[in-house]
Amino acid sequence: MIGGGQGSFIGEVHRLAANLDGQIELVCGAFSSKPEVSKASGQALFLPENRCYATYAEMIEKEATMPEGERMDFVSIVTPNHVHFEPTKLALEAGFPVILDKPMCFDFDQALQMQEIIGRTGLPFALTHTYTGYPMVKQAKSMVKDGTLGKIKKINVEYPQGWLSEKLEDTGAKQAAWRTDPKRSGKSGCFGDIGTHAANMAEYVSGLKITKVLSRLKTVVDGRLLDDDADVLLEFEGGVHGLLSASQISTGEENGVKVRVYGEKGGLEWKQVDNNSLAVTMLGQPKQILRAGGDNDYLSEMALAACRIPAGHPEGYLEAFANIYKNFALSMRAHAAGRKADLTIHDYPGIEDGVRGMALIDAMVASTEAGNAWTDVVLK
Amino acid sequence: MIGGGQGSFIGEVHRLAANLDGQIELVCGAFSSKPEVSKASGQALFLPENRCYATYAEMIEKEATMPEGERMDFVSIVTPNHVHFEPTKLALEAGFPVILDKPMCFDFDQALQMQEIIGRTGLPFALTHTYTGYPMVKQAKSMVKDGTLGKIKKINVEYPQGWLSEKLEDTGAKQAAWRTDPKRSGKSGCFGDIGTHAANMAEYVSGLKITKVLSRLKTVVDGRLLDDDADVLLEFEGGVHGLLSASQISTGEENGVKVRVYGEKGGLEWKQVDNNSLAVTMLGQPKQILRAGGDNDYLSEMALAACRIPAGHPEGYLEAFANIYKNFALSMRAHAAGRKADLTIHDYPGIEDGVRGMALIDAMVASTEAGNAWTDVVLK
Amino acid sequence: MIGGGQGSFIGEVHRLAANLDGQIELVCGAFSSKPEVSKASGQALFLPENRCYATYAEMIEKEATMPEGERMDFVSIVTPNHVHFEPTKLALEAGFPVILDKPMCFDFDQALQMQEIIGRTGLPFALTHTYTGYPMVKQAKSMVKDGTLGKIKKINVEYPQGWLSEKLEDTGAKQAAWRTDPKRSGKSGCFGDIGTHAANMAEYVSGLKITKVLSRLKTVVDGRLLDDDADVLLEFEGGVHGLLSASQISTGEENGVKVRVYGEKGGLEWKQVDNNSLAVTMLGQPKQILRAGGDNDYLSEMALAACRIPAGHPEGYLEAFANIYKNFALSMRAHAAGRKADLTIHDYPGIEDGVRGMALIDAMVASTEAGNAWTDVVLK
Amino acid sequence: MIGGGQGSFIGEVHRLAANLDGQIELVCGAFSSKPEVSKASGQALFLPENRCYATYAEMIEKEATMPEGERMDFVSIVTPNHVHFEPTKLALEAGFPVILDKPMCFDFDQALQMQEIIGRTGLPFALTHTYTGYPMVKQAKSMVKDGTLGKIKKINVEYPQGWLSEKLEDTGAKQAAWRTDPKRSGKSGCFGDIGTHAANMAEYVSGLKITKVLSRLKTVVDGRLLDDDADVLLEFEGGVHGLLSASQISTGEENGVKVRVYGEKGGLEWKQVDNNSLAVTMLGQPKQILRAGGDNDYLSEMALAACRIPAGHPEGYLEAFANIYKNFALSMRAHAAGRKADLTIHDYPGIEDGVRGMALIDAMVASTEAGNAWTDVVLK
Repeated sequence: MIGGGQGSFIGEVHRLAANLDGQIELVCGAFSSKPEVSKASGQALFLPENRCYATYAEMIEKEATMPEGERMDFVSIVTPNHVHFEPTKLALEAGFPVILDKPMCFDFDQALQMQEIIGRTGLPFALTHTYTGYPMVKQAKSMVKDGTLGKIKKINVEYPQGWLSEKLEDTGAKQAAWRTDPKRSGKSGCFGDIGTHAANMAEYVSGLKITKVLSRLKTVVDGRLLDDDADVLLEFEGGVHGLLSASQISTGEENGVKVRVYGEKGGLEWKQVDNNSLAVTMLGQPKQILRAGGDNDYLSEMALAACRIPAGHPEGYLEAFANIYKNFALSMRAHAAGRKADLTIHDYPGIEDGVRGMALIDAMVASTEAGNAWTDVVLK
Repeated sequence: MIGGGQGSFIGEVHRLAANLDGQIELVCGAFSSKPEVSKASGQALFLPENRCYATYAEMIEKEATMPEGERMDFVSIVTPNHVHFEPTKLALEAGFPVILDKPMCFDFDQALQMQEIIGRTGLPFALTHTYTGYPMVKQAKSMVKDGTLGKIKKINVEYPQGWLSEKLEDTGAKQAAWRTDPKRSGKSGCFGDIGTHAANMAEYVSGLKITKVLSRLKTVVDGRLLDDDADVLLEFEGGVHGLLSASQISTGEENGVKVRVYGEKGGLEWKQVDNNSLAVTMLGQPKQILRAGGDNDYLSEMALAACRIPAGHPEGYLEAFANIYKNFALSMRAHAAGRKADLTIHDYPGIEDGVRGMALIDAMVASTEAGNAWTDVVLK
Repeated sequence: MIGGGQGSFIGEVHRLAANLDGQIELVCGAFSSKPEVSKASGQALFLPENRCYATYAEMIEKEATMPEGERMDFVSIVTPNHVHFEPTKLALEAGFPVILDKPMCFDFDQALQMQEIIGRTGLPFALTHTYTGYPMVKQAKSMVKDGTLGKIKKINVEYPQGWLSEKLEDTGAKQAAWRTDPKRSGKSGCFGDIGTHAANMAEYVSGLKITKVLSRLKTVVDGRLLDDDADVLLEFEGGVHGLLSASQISTGEENGVKVRVYGEKGGLEWKQVDNNSLAVTMLGQPKQILRAGGDNDYLSEMALAACRIPAGHPEGYLEAFANIYKNFALSMRAHAAGRKADLTIHDYPGIEDGVRGMALIDAMVASTEAGNAWTDVVLK
Repeated sequence: MIGGGQGSFIGEVHRLAANLDGQIELVCGAFSSKPEVSKASGQALFLPENRCYATYAEMIEKEATMPEGERMDFVSIVTPNHVHFEPTKLALEAGFPVILDKPMCFDFDQALQMQEIIGRTGLPFALTHTYTGYPMVKQAKSMVKDGTLGKIKKINVEYPQGWLSEKLEDTGAKQAAWRTDPKRSGKSGCFGDIGTHAANMAEYVSGLKITKVLSRLKTVVDGRLLDDDADVLLEFEGGVHGLLSASQISTGEENGVKVRVYGEKGGLEWKQVDNNSLAVTMLGQPKQILRAGGDNDYLSEMALAACRIPAGHPEGYLEAFANIYKNFALSMRAHAAGRKADLTIHDYPGIEDGVRGMALIDAMVASTEAGNAWTDVVLK
């Protein structure tokens, strides 16, 4: 693991998610840009001293020299955005698969380089757009794909948070500090951090790509350096339209991810606060509440594969996150065996999602700077 | 009553709402543009034959000649939009207060004329933006007004419906036919019909006026003549921003009116599907669920005045509608007694709301026609 | 109207409900046992002085002498329990149909006498077990009746309230005072007041009668004279079992009426707090949320007849109450025309429900006094 | 691990829960009473062949001879009830701490023996009453304990399931087969399996012990050998009363665990379907929705210690389960270091809960056999 030392939120989440299915073991790490913090963090995680590295470069170099079976199998990177590209590149070039936190990197140019390296090395690569790991999000995707909803007409997605309603970055809060700092986050704050999740969710469930955006990125809290609120008109392939709203200043909201897809025959709604349910309403019929659970035979194969326990015993965010790790582990095993993994059931977000995310950030910023004008999503 | 004959939805709603508090009695009507339908409708409502008029002109003329105490006290107009202006004008000019369904009229020019007549006659006038009649919407307004939420930062309002997902206007459905017909509805379909409700709700709760809009009106169903979907970026007084979404093609949605207001100290959320609740979350505190009910002393005076029964016995749409009638009746009584009614507690939407609604329709259409560009709301 | 003077909760509810559909008009009343309160109440309701009577006896006597068309058509009785029997008897004997608040009377003996009078006079009689007036409760009944759920296995009903958590009867609260006074309420407090509603609901929805009870009536608040909490094991016809819980000391609860019926093929759940929804789950299928609304064709004829407006515009308690008045009005009209009303669609609770309610009160008290022993429900 | 071989539900749950925090590693197992199934199951879990034992006796014997640091640290027992006592006894006598699935054993006599062994050996012992591992259940407990709700007046707990609505035990369903078999489950089916969870929850949250019960255990499905439905009147210490309902034939229900506690000053409600929320209503105040989340400072220390991630990212059943393992691990570490663990914050259910559970089963069966009579809970 690279990053995720003491005080990190997402590092701990990655570790919990990786642990869950008992298929992945933390064996080494460079947990901080400060060597002594890195070592202390590693020891708190029961790692042997010699595998708590001072830097990620050292880690990758040394692990690469160890015999197969002893050395790490892949690298998990959970640093702030500005430290995504370099370690990913090093790891991949050294032959290690990578699982990386989102957004993928600091700017679009890095994204293209990463795409090139992954294409060249052929190594498995995952990006943790967590929300697509929820069973009922996969069920939603299945029901769009199999035509249950008919031709899609409109897609709404939102991600309201309230935690940056105050200027937390001035209070020493580490999580707030890097997320609002253009040197570490890149050119967008709110959209980069959570808007990319929302956009990824919309594309994942609908199976349609966003082609144009008209965005209004706002900085609501005085003195903040990046946007903390984003409202966006979307256009998808085939002329389907949509709406995206992401906000970090929506006081009182937690992590209100919600997606709604409306088709000619029916509509669906999923929201994280009730993640084990999927509401589906067919024209002229009562609303149906589909529920996660390995014993609910009416679910799609893809959704069932993402459930660990029977209906009524709620699963949550860590299980969704763990689904990415679990499916990535399948891919790595297939790769190690010289096979290509079948991603139709055991899918996870990858380089394409990452490149799209960075292109979307560019389009959002450009649209806002042009006075909220329609802007194409350019994938170069 | 003018309009609301057999097959009308909103006419029956007005009658139920007017009945509820036992203060208003239907005494005469011109229920349809077809004299025989008008007469039949009136008789089905137990009216004497001589007060079922063939036309509204006849009704106003004849009633005006009757002695006070016998003649009608006011006129309720529930016709399609293109038949709002003329009967309102006639009624007011003949000295009758008017309660009118929204949107107020066919175009902005008529709105200004109505404003002039009302100003000149000094007669009570109400416009049935029903949703502001709900007790917990009034509570929301009170809590913004008294500063509970702090300075307002963002306002989100939505009104998704799904009932026009198919081309119902081709099936003989009367409700769908006039609403999608530019000759009867005016220049906007979805925004005019329900978007105006949403905008009115946003302004009512926040106490802030919309100054600029960037709208995308869409006609999703092939061959439809007016917009059936509207997404709008809003700007309010004081630079507060917001988002409005109204849709008639959101398959599976009923009448999902929902408003969220985010302030520096707290946020609130109200939705029609759970109309007796108001969720309020203050920074760092648990969410609170305030509940309608005449015995809930923690509610504002304005909200309490809008409750009829104790908490836990749900009130609904007809009661909200009836609150407009009830408060309008108070105003009429005050007017009859030569007094000015106090509208701080017993409020209802009026001419200002109506003029704003028509100006908003103009702005929405203009913004869309300009390629989704920022457009000022012009009140002439 | 008899009872329902100033300060009454249920009198106002009856008036609102009677008003709603514009078919019933308040023409006279004896609103209080105190003649001056009765007169003042009547005048506040816009009644002419000569029809605000000092006593109900006077009202019935005088109205009976008035010509048809002028005199009242029926009597609505909304007094405390101990003043149910006498006015009902007088009214019926004088030829007036009666609509009466529940529980029906003071003791079982009165109930039998009322049954005899109603049988003898053949006059329409309604008892306001309000909750069975909700459209989705009627839908629930229809789905049990038509076999959708299969053979019924278990019935759970609950009615928790919290308003008597403190000893309100000592604070001058009129509503609390008579409900906790055995001289006015009869031998049971909580069960008589709300447990009878719950039992009626269970029988109404399931179509099965309660045959035996094992009850624990409790007086939780020190010094209270009647039970304020009741938990009951039920046995229904055909050996079906159930559970009933009613409480007035469940701090924080409003009027949490909820019924659940489990059959061999499916189960259903209805709760007042979300009265426009009915959750139905068939074995192995996703839960379905049926919604009230005159446009929801999938509802039963009985449920549709109880809806006034389309889905998504919530109806509530007053509308449910008004459904009893509306259906009772149909019966009265049929009776006046010498016909028998068809109650399969336009039903309302009547004498049988009332007699059963009083028998259940007797059984509950007897069971508790016998140390919580099984006790038959005896209908003499 | 003992039990939990292929086809087991709860074995997999234990493994997921044990994995989550990265502090526990599966090192050996006797996964089935059939040696070949045990071996196959172990290998599927990546265990070395020599640590996949044919029998639990063999496992305990061999592991005990291994050096500290290599041998297993404790035993997790996830067999059906009739195979709880023997392996627990063997493991404890051999010096291994035990974490055991509920209900604790086959009969009360075994429970007392286990209590004696645990007392004598002083080894840590945990019983997986999972639901008390939820953060918001711990919050509920804290708020009762600190007097927020005032003196407790009533406690309601329910656990409806629908999965045994049909006679699944005849279809070869392994989960159904042993749970409905008196030879493997003991003298109660539904109450033993899930009623004990409900009773434990009621006692845990309220801090009060059940002293007397009046139970109605029912066998609803024809031909089933044990009860599949249980309704129980409860009496707690101090004369507090309550109601418990557990059912496996409530068609359409999942795992609807719900607890409500009513005190003199306020009431609370928690339900598994919304496990990250706790509703608290203080007299005369709006309902508050407290939410799980490590960043919600308003939570109690005990609740915060049970949260892994910030509010809004839902945790679920596996995390609750993992809290038992995590706290048990703390106890084991303290024990290994010769210290006594502090269980006020990092608590988990243990031998006392287990003995009480078995005593409750005895009381339930006795009460039902006595014709639903009040029966003391006897702890010998």
